[in-house]
Amino acid sequence: MSIRFILVAPRHPGNIGAAARAMKTMGADDLWLVAPASFPDPEATTRAAGAADLLERAQVVATLAEAVADCNFVVGTSARLRTEFYWPGLTPREAAPRLLAAGEEGTAAVVFGTERSGLTNAEFERCNALIHVPANPAYESLNLSQAVQIIAYELRCAADLAIPRPRRLVPLAPAAELDRLTAHIDQVLNAVGFTDRAGGPTLLKRFERIFARAELDQHEVNMLRGLLAAVLTQRSSADSER
Amino acid sequence: MSIRFILVAPRHPGNIGAAARAMKTMGADDLWLVAPASFPDPEATTRAAGAADLLERAQVVATLAEAVADCNFVVGTSARLRTEFYWPGLTPREAAPRLLAAGEEGTAAVVFGTERSGLTNAEFERCNALIHVPANPAYESLNLSQAVQIIAYELRCAADLAIPRPRRLVPLAPAAELDRLTAHIDQVLNAVGFTDRAGGPTLLKRFERIFARAELDQHEVNMLRGLLAAVLTQRSSADSER
Repeated sequence: MSIRFILVAPRHPGNIGAAARAMKTMGADDLWLVAPASFPDPEATTRAAGAADLLERAQVVATLAEAVADCNFVVGTSARLRTEFYWPGLTPREAAPRLLAAGEEGTAAVVFGTERSGLTNAEFERCNALIHVPANPAYESLNLSQAVQIIAYELRCAADLAIPRPRRLVPLAPAAELDRLTAHIDQVLNAVGFTDRAGGPTLLKRFERIFARAELDQHEVNMLRGLLAAVLTQRSSADSER
Repeated sequence: MSIRFILVAPRHPGNIGAAARAMKTMGADDLWLVAPASFPDPEATTRAAGAADLLERAQVVATLAEAVADCNFVVGTSARLRTEFYWPGLTPREAAPRLLAAGEEGTAAVVFGTERSGLTNAEFERCNALIHVPANPAYESLNLSQAVQIIAYELRCAADLAIPRPRRLVPLAPAAELDRLTAHIDQVLNAVGFTDRAGGPTLLKRFERIFARAELDQHEVNMLRGLLAAVLTQRSSADSER
């Protein structure tokens, strides 16, 4: 993923470092800084943690025009919905695949405005579209690096729809095994006298439903049947001692 | 949105503040802290910015068990894919609507582990499922507040486009009820002599995990405990007849 992240006039070096870290966790690595208040800065390096390499490679320029000069698609981020002029408004989720598609043909960029006031109208003029991050209307004050995190996360989700999953070590039990488990529990229910007051299959069906939802693996079925066998054995040995 | 955010053993007060801010920007406001290294703390208040009210209302408890005792659905977050045991793995996007659905019937929670090492296996035992945030395999080191931001963002997106779901007829059992169920099965395991060959808590833990995955409702817990009580009663009456 080679989407360019452009921070315009960041005031706090810590935010630059945190933004770099946020980018790198999601696999983005092309960081540009427009007229940063202080850069390089030890506070940026500290907050970047393992993403200090992004800071070393960061491009520093004086104007947004320079940062987007070679870009084919530029999206600005905004906390507020802008009404003075019409801009195509995208959610982060909608913007991500469009950025990736443009990025395959050239260089696509996301632009983040300065802390507190955001992008100016002149800066929006440089953008093809605008991303509005969904937020609490009572408190929209997303930190700069948090906005970067959300956009980078959406880009990663869009780029990598095949998301890794935890692997089962033991295969799921086949249905026939679950049937044997159900038959076994039926035996125990009868042996200990725990049966439906009104008769009928309700109680056993409810056990079946729990087992189905739990998605039991073969070891777990063996374990449950081991317990059921132990209950029956103990009972019959108690009976034979009478 | 009333999803509980639980931070386990946060070491840096700044992360608590940044997490509160991240939550509030997305409309979440129920913050619990398990054994924080330092709280309250001026660094937390500074980083919270306009979300200091969340810190004032935050609940501080000593153990994760206390924080989830009244919760009907608990999801742990993990940077790594865990392979020792199988847990249902969800993306943040998949987890969000399930949390919201459970939250409509009771209290649902997302749990974040301590910085660097994350949740322990004992803490995962308290969870019904696991969220794995998609990340760059070469650098998965998401800052705590950034992980909170992504989950809160997905919850907000899901809340904005809530889809009608099948409703449960019976509410999910809270964690404290599941603890009583586990204690009850422990009694039965000992009574019938079905215990770990090598000793240790493995067997009981595997039962806990099945129950957690099955997302038991209150009637089902009652039914299971009814069966366990019947097993114990039959055994003791058989014993007394000897």
